[in-house]
Amino acid sequence: MSPSTRATVADVQLLSGPTVDVHTHVYLPSYIDYLRSRKEVPRIFRAESGEDRLVILPGEDKDSSTAKGRPIGKEYYDVDTKLEFMDVHKIDASVISLANPWLDFMDPSTASPLAAQINSDLQSICAKDYGDDGAKKVLYGLGCLPTTSVEGSVKALEHLAEMDRMRGVLMGTYGKGKGLDDPEFEPVFAKAEELGLPIFIHPHYGIPSEMYGDMPNGHVMSLALGFPFETTISITRIILAGVLDRYPKLKLILAHSGGVAPYLVGRLDSCVKHDRHISQRLKKPPSEVSPIYLKSLYYDAVSYNPAPLRSLCDLVGSDRVMFGTDNPFFPPLEGISGRWESVDTNYGAIAGLENVDWMKGVKGTNAARILDLHV
Amino acid sequence: MSPSTRATVADVQLLSGPTVDVHTHVYLPSYIDYLRSRKEVPRIFRAESGEDRLVILPGEDKDSSTAKGRPIGKEYYDVDTKLEFMDVHKIDASVISLANPWLDFMDPSTASPLAAQINSDLQSICAKDYGDDGAKKVLYGLGCLPTTSVEGSVKALEHLAEMDRMRGVLMGTYGKGKGLDDPEFEPVFAKAEELGLPIFIHPHYGIPSEMYGDMPNGHVMSLALGFPFETTISITRIILAGVLDRYPKLKLILAHSGGVAPYLVGRLDSCVKHDRHISQRLKKPPSEVSPIYLKSLYYDAVSYNPAPLRSLCDLVGSDRVMFGTDNPFFPPLEGISGRWESVDTNYGAIAGLENVDWMKGVKGTNAARILDLHV
Repeated sequence: MSPSTRATVADVQLLSGPTVDVHTHVYLPSYIDYLRSRKEVPRIFRAESGEDRLVILPGEDKDSSTAKGRPIGKEYYDVDTKLEFMDVHKIDASVISLANPWLDFMDPSTASPLAAQINSDLQSICAKDYGDDGAKKVLYGLGCLPTTSVEGSVKALEHLAEMDRMRGVLMGTYGKGKGLDDPEFEPVFAKAEELGLPIFIHPHYGIPSEMYGDMPNGHVMSLALGFPFETTISITRIILAGVLDRYPKLKLILAHSGGVAPYLVGRLDSCVKHDRHISQRLKKPPSEVSPIYLKSLYYDAVSYNPAPLRSLCDLVGSDRVMFGTDNPFFPPLEGISGRWESVDTNYGAIAGLENVDWMKGVKGTNAARILDLHV
Repeated sequence: MSPSTRATVADVQLLSGPTVDVHTHVYLPSYIDYLRSRKEVPRIFRAESGEDRLVILPGEDKDSSTAKGRPIGKEYYDVDTKLEFMDVHKIDASVISLANPWLDFMDPSTASPLAAQINSDLQSICAKDYGDDGAKKVLYGLGCLPTTSVEGSVKALEHLAEMDRMRGVLMGTYGKGKGLDDPEFEPVFAKAEELGLPIFIHPHYGIPSEMYGDMPNGHVMSLALGFPFETTISITRIILAGVLDRYPKLKLILAHSGGVAPYLVGRLDSCVKHDRHISQRLKKPPSEVSPIYLKSLYYDAVSYNPAPLRSLCDLVGSDRVMFGTDNPFFPPLEGISGRWESVDTNYGAIAGLENVDWMKGVKGTNAARILDLHV
């Protein structure tokens, strides 16, 4: 089985070894309750139809093509629905995380206790036994941080380190308000490194929507472009600030196959090399000169196409890339039961990889090793 | 010679067939004069040292790490210096274009006559014979448009079509002020298609710098990220507006290996597929479903790394990708004579391609075919 003989989605699922989904979200009841209580974005409101709708993206409520948000059904909060989704897609283990926008829009006094509650709830959910012996399902968790409070975030990390089913955190790029290259935010990275807890960096805010023009393009511009741009800006700022120089054992996982950082690796390197101040400030150029920054990171495989996924693996090594679904987002237009095209597209991207070892690794053994999962 | 035996820069230069640089800029004297007359960015001013300095990027004058712009030496405007650069780097033909920010910040009454002047000047420069028989150098041109005037741009295209050394235009993403998906700008695309004149889309404005945080990162964020993001936003808006559906023979060339559109092809496709309104509005999904949008475009090979260049060729076909240098930008830190590392890095990216045919094509035969060059 090689790219030339065209492996299929079914082939990938038949490969030995576990299938692990590292990018799969849930809105926990404690978080849903909080979002229901809000009058502003992010919020959940009851539409005239009686249906609950979720409006989460910045400015989403201002554009007529997106103001109604999206219906929020069981796939957003119900664990049994998540397990059913895993069953349908032959996923053995899921590393579940709170869905965006997490807690960075909250005052620290609200965010800190809510993070503690959510993380405990996640641990409880993940600690249960699911499925029978024939089709056992395993859940692990990535916790959340009250990032507007550095002290609260450090405490939350210490709390998470004591929970046997939690494997790190997932957070946005906002930090305490000035992004992840803010020197005041560094104690969070220091503590995560010290505790060996990976940090999954996930976009939410995108870039200013004035860039998107006047056409009614729904969520396409912000989700297809704004999200990966935000991730890329964030990791670039982290690199240029020297965070990876100071915390070389920090494990960062980048959403959506690294945003677009892998495609820009050469350009970024060239820009740094041609700026004497920055190239002297950094310990290494962020490119293929060994050892390198992008090769020290981890990535999900949520790229929806074989070409970028292959180039990511070419660049950083296939052993740093991990399957994900982004569930419950990108559901089928016609109901959530049955197989999701978005998931099969990501399986299909894996099917386009160089060889079976790469496919097995990305499908699950990488995640099991990187996140220490027992599957 | 295959990627496993590691072709080198020297190997690529020894391959038969022409070497063509499709991405190489010049600030023509008429444009330099205009920039000298300005008090605001973009402008050229004389520093206290007596040196001329160019400040062109939005906000560049506001940030202490970039306010002084860059020294503007002969490599910015002198044709002999361009020919010397071609000689040193074994480039047989260059398709020269005005450098950013072109004319989209000007009132139409200024821009239209200046465009006519610049285009005539470019034609004259390109029409001369350069080099002797042993090392003949050939120049072609991409003209500029007074994009704030649609009528003026249409006239400029007609003017360019009559010039025997001009091969299309190079322009920014601003259009007449609302971007390239502005319905009022469409006559420009219609005319370019009718005349068979390719349009090279090049970024300049980037994205709002508020995204880049407070660290002194010089030009890195705006050049490494803002530029490719702008190109990607622009081509996505063009696709979503249906421009490529209405002008299927339009030849668009994207700067810097397509910004990051090639890496996002799957994500863009998934976002469109999951939005009923947009997927119904477009004739085709922007992905690998055949025939596709990204495969109908052309790209330079200015990616500075083999991994993205390989993935671009995988995705769209190597026959749509053309070598470029981005001269006079990214000059060596220590003087402009001798070989430029930025150029060799782009040759090196070609050396990482699948096979010799791909390398030859990207090095020059693709450009000769696509732009009808006699080399």
